[in-house]
Amino acid sequence: MSKIAVLGYGVVGSGVVELFYKNKEKIEKKAGHEMDVKFILDIREFPDSPYKDKFVKSIDEIVNDGEVTTVAECMGGVEPAFTFTKQCLEKGISVCTSNKELVAAKGDELLALAQANSCNYFFEASVGGAIPIIRPLHRCLAGNDITSVAGILNGTTNFILTKMINDGMKFDDALKLAQELGYAESNPAADVEGHDACRKICIISSLVYGRHVYPDSVYTKGITDIKLEDVQIVDKIGAIKLIAQVSRISDETILPTVMPMIVPHESLLSSVSDVFNAVMVNGDGIDKVMFYGRGAGKLPTASAVMGDIVEAEKHSKTVLSQSWEAASDNSFVEDYTKLSAKMYFRINAADKDKVNTVCSNAEVICSDDNNYAFVTEKLSMKQALEMQDKLKNNGVEVITLLPLLSE
Amino acid sequence: MSKIAVLGYGVVGSGVVELFYKNKEKIEKKAGHEMDVKFILDIREFPDSPYKDKFVKSIDEIVNDGEVTTVAECMGGVEPAFTFTKQCLEKGISVCTSNKELVAAKGDELLALAQANSCNYFFEASVGGAIPIIRPLHRCLAGNDITSVAGILNGTTNFILTKMINDGMKFDDALKLAQELGYAESNPAADVEGHDACRKICIISSLVYGRHVYPDSVYTKGITDIKLEDVQIVDKIGAIKLIAQVSRISDETILPTVMPMIVPHESLLSSVSDVFNAVMVNGDGIDKVMFYGRGAGKLPTASAVMGDIVEAEKHSKTVLSQSWEAASDNSFVEDYTKLSAKMYFRINAADKDKVNTVCSNAEVICSDDNNYAFVTEKLSMKQALEMQDKLKNNGVEVITLLPLLSE
Repeated sequence: MSKIAVLGYGVVGSGVVELFYKNKEKIEKKAGHEMDVKFILDIREFPDSPYKDKFVKSIDEIVNDGEVTTVAECMGGVEPAFTFTKQCLEKGISVCTSNKELVAAKGDELLALAQANSCNYFFEASVGGAIPIIRPLHRCLAGNDITSVAGILNGTTNFILTKMINDGMKFDDALKLAQELGYAESNPAADVEGHDACRKICIISSLVYGRHVYPDSVYTKGITDIKLEDVQIVDKIGAIKLIAQVSRISDETILPTVMPMIVPHESLLSSVSDVFNAVMVNGDGIDKVMFYGRGAGKLPTASAVMGDIVEAEKHSKTVLSQSWEAASDNSFVEDYTKLSAKMYFRINAADKDKVNTVCSNAEVICSDDNNYAFVTEKLSMKQALEMQDKLKNNGVEVITLLPLLSE
Repeated sequence: MSKIAVLGYGVVGSGVVELFYKNKEKIEKKAGHEMDVKFILDIREFPDSPYKDKFVKSIDEIVNDGEVTTVAECMGGVEPAFTFTKQCLEKGISVCTSNKELVAAKGDELLALAQANSCNYFFEASVGGAIPIIRPLHRCLAGNDITSVAGILNGTTNFILTKMINDGMKFDDALKLAQELGYAESNPAADVEGHDACRKICIISSLVYGRHVYPDSVYTKGITDIKLEDVQIVDKIGAIKLIAQVSRISDETILPTVMPMIVPHESLLSSVSDVFNAVMVNGDGIDKVMFYGRGAGKLPTASAVMGDIVEAEKHSKTVLSQSWEAASDNSFVEDYTKLSAKMYFRINAADKDKVNTVCSNAEVICSDDNNYAFVTEKLSMKQALEMQDKLKNNGVEVITLLPLLSE
């Protein structure tokens, strides 16, 4: 009989406890031995909880208990989660986390600490909720040279964009609906401005390319500027999605970005709607594989934490978690102006005759009384921004500039 | 420096060797030590191969060598692959296989043998080619009660059906094209009659539900009867796909089937086209997750074998492969007549007035000069077949009966 502890009894932490007792027998069979939740750490009181006897307020009770072998960290935020996680790992207690903020900020350090103490720091739940993505990426695809990863990694923004696409709602109305349904927080900045997706692509980038990528080195643009006009115009060729992606640019450099992009209808990613997430991985062996599922929510996220707990419990003496190097600087992260893509431009219909001198060979996808929109050949973002400047010098205001996702 | 051997130098085996030398440095970094291919077993001669010095004709050279730690079995077929695999595992040499026929026939026995000899029998490549599905299913989703798995597990049939759906080709013409493109063999029976998909759903069923499911206990129907008329009529509601699925019917019984089904457009599975495969997994924690990618081909399948090799090499002392019980009989496999689904019927338009007494509440989806097609409420397959008989007694021939996939 081994003992586990859960840090934080919020949405995910309570989900872990719920899922564990629901499927206890199956989980124990998979882990190979009996298990129980011995402690739940939370500063709040839960007098009516069936687990009220398990609640503690100090991490010391857990790390000094001597019986706890695995901890689920479901607190969120960097502190005190970082300190608590270090205390566990230093005692050889494996930690399974859903805390993307902490992994994105301190993953390198915590993975090294786990390795040094012959235990595991697992973080499957930190990216893509229920979707198995971390373990498949570093285990199953180990034979590949991964050339790029592109994902819809934030359910809130995907819900909002889906409402704009399918129901013709404006951004503000779709956001309000998302808040009413509990998909968006009252302060939605972390989601709609792309910071949540940024943390996740940092984790994926670090894992795939072996060096810690910090969120502040990643170009991040959210969806607050997305206009319904563009959603409707691009419907002919694809769907606007908030894409978090990373590509290998050279042997030494990578380019991670978070920004709205047009996903062509031919890509399965364009069919990923509502709160669902998906991650498309490109590599020299696999060509492409995609993982799809619920990127958030109580039980989906708890499922990922639980999978990690089973793995940690089954192999308590084996270091299975992947490490990556600390990065002393960001010089291996390329500037987003190097992004290469077909580019979508929208301008006022009145200006359309002024475009030809600046951009020939473009495919016109809309030319009506109000709007003129076209898609260029593949350009670098630098070239696209230069084109935008040239148009401005010709008296043409570019209303929208969006890159197309290429697979 | 550890040594690996490859059994069989056909499409997959040569792909493993190619991918290994292409990404050797990355692979060694993941495995944690240097590696090399020491032997390639094949009865044929490859005098022009750059690896000609590695070829051997006897398995004894490999198992008695003393240096080989992991073997990639890419031979296909039950014998001699079964005997060779046993010889390796008995010596504590881990085996990674792409051989679905062998895993479906003898998986229980070989997994037990691996466990008894503290080595691993991995088979990620046996289902879904490049797609990570085996490891995610038994590792990442370990916290879930898996209620069902449904997949498009055969690329050849999916290519044929895609050609029928998108290009209006008849079955025979689409098969011929698949053969010309190398997607179908000259004797296409294993693909188009569903046996290949059957082996794969047997492996998934055994893994998820813990008992060996033999191919001959699984109701298997291929796509040779699929008519272009039906493909076109159902386009309104979904796409006809060859679906291999398994559901938990009770705590004691499961229902695996392989048959053409109508996948509603709302399901992401309906968008999986050409030679691509996908697997949708339903569970109480995850809700649903889907895995998508290339289900066959040289490098995609080699990628899955290579991922297994890295895992086996990295953890040569840890048994990571999941075991399942041998099954003394098939009593835990339910009869396919218990399948519950909405049902699509097509009859001659001339008979449409004779239907109402037998089936009310059906949704008519086609009523033209030739065809009358409708979809019933959820029925068991037994009830659907009884309805077919009743219609026959009323003088109505049912031209097509197809179940709809429900998620």
